[in-house]
Amino acid sequence: MTDNLTTASNVSIALLHYPVYDKNREVVATAVTNLDLHDIARSAKTFGLHRYYVITPVVEQRALSERIRSHWLDGWGATYNPKRKAALELMRVVDCLDTAIADLEESFGKKAKIVVTGAQGRANSISSAELGELFLDAAQPYLLLFGTGWGMTEDVFNRADYVLEPIKGRGAYNHLSVRSAAAIILDRLFGER
Amino acid sequence: MTDNLTTASNVSIALLHYPVYDKNREVVATAVTNLDLHDIARSAKTFGLHRYYVITPVVEQRALSERIRSHWLDGWGATYNPKRKAALELMRVVDCLDTAIADLEESFGKKAKIVVTGAQGRANSISSAELGELFLDAAQPYLLLFGTGWGMTEDVFNRADYVLEPIKGRGAYNHLSVRSAAAIILDRLFGER
Repeated sequence: MTDNLTTASNVSIALLHYPVYDKNREVVATAVTNLDLHDIARSAKTFGLHRYYVITPVVEQRALSERIRSHWLDGWGATYNPKRKAALELMRVVDCLDTAIADLEESFGKKAKIVVTGAQGRANSISSAELGELFLDAAQPYLLLFGTGWGMTEDVFNRADYVLEPIKGRGAYNHLSVRSAAAIILDRLFGER
Repeated sequence: MTDNLTTASNVSIALLHYPVYDKNREVVATAVTNLDLHDIARSAKTFGLHRYYVITPVVEQRALSERIRSHWLDGWGATYNPKRKAALELMRVVDCLDTAIADLEESFGKKAKIVVTGAQGRANSISSAELGELFLDAAQPYLLLFGTGWGMTEDVFNRADYVLEPIKGRGAYNHLSVRSAAAIILDRLFGER
């Protein structure tokens, strides 16, 4: 549902840098990309989400992400561009998915339902419209997961409560950036038309 | 209209680095951002567009953009990641909007209609649904313009045939990245639901 009733304040988004596949289907931790932090934070803020989790087990990568966040929140960037500040305020840098889930449980007093997204369809995929209906239960927190690299591992898919159907374009090519895919999915779920 | 009849093969997209405003509403040429090339090319390819023009009057910036394009088209990148190649094949680096329009006229034998996009609404804005209807005339080329920096100048808006209504989120915050905005608009126009 993309009507005005759909709320986004019980919905959060997470970007997983681990566990994901690389090109050769090895499980790896990918590097954090600066524009993933900004773009997805700005999309999350535009569509009224609760929180944006950046997930990586690599200590140095978390330190880098925190440094970027601080620059725009408290540093020179905060006065240079307050719009960046407003977006990055939603961002939390955490070591693993369970930490994000625990953080949401603290906020909502309830375990979040996990929704995974990806370029491949699954037998049990649900549509944006169906997911929008579920979001109407504002007491239930939801966490939308996006992967980096060549996608989230099977383990992540297996622990999800829902799998969102993939974005279809025109033809066989289906290789959007994660920044673009996140923007499109949030618009489908929460955008006004 | 987001039905299957809407074609995208008469529609191209352009990213303007000039003339755009900076923070203080001075007219400037912005720098090319590597991920703008990739992300928008991948979105354009996913949604079946004709061409993606990167517009900048700065010679060095065009050379840089061409170098990135060559890396993925003919260089090491082409074998490393053929999906990037398929997307960047749509990309043309040109010096100004008129060159893009001339290039489209050569392909279609007809002057393209110009559609500008931006975060501000205009009195004469049209909706994605209305624009999708216009696109059904497959003999008529269209060029969707996206700006960088703090947005395209009034001159660009004034020469447009249509102004697309802005993307509305939830609340007053409306600061999507150009990569995200382009993805959302192409999905609204051409995505299957």
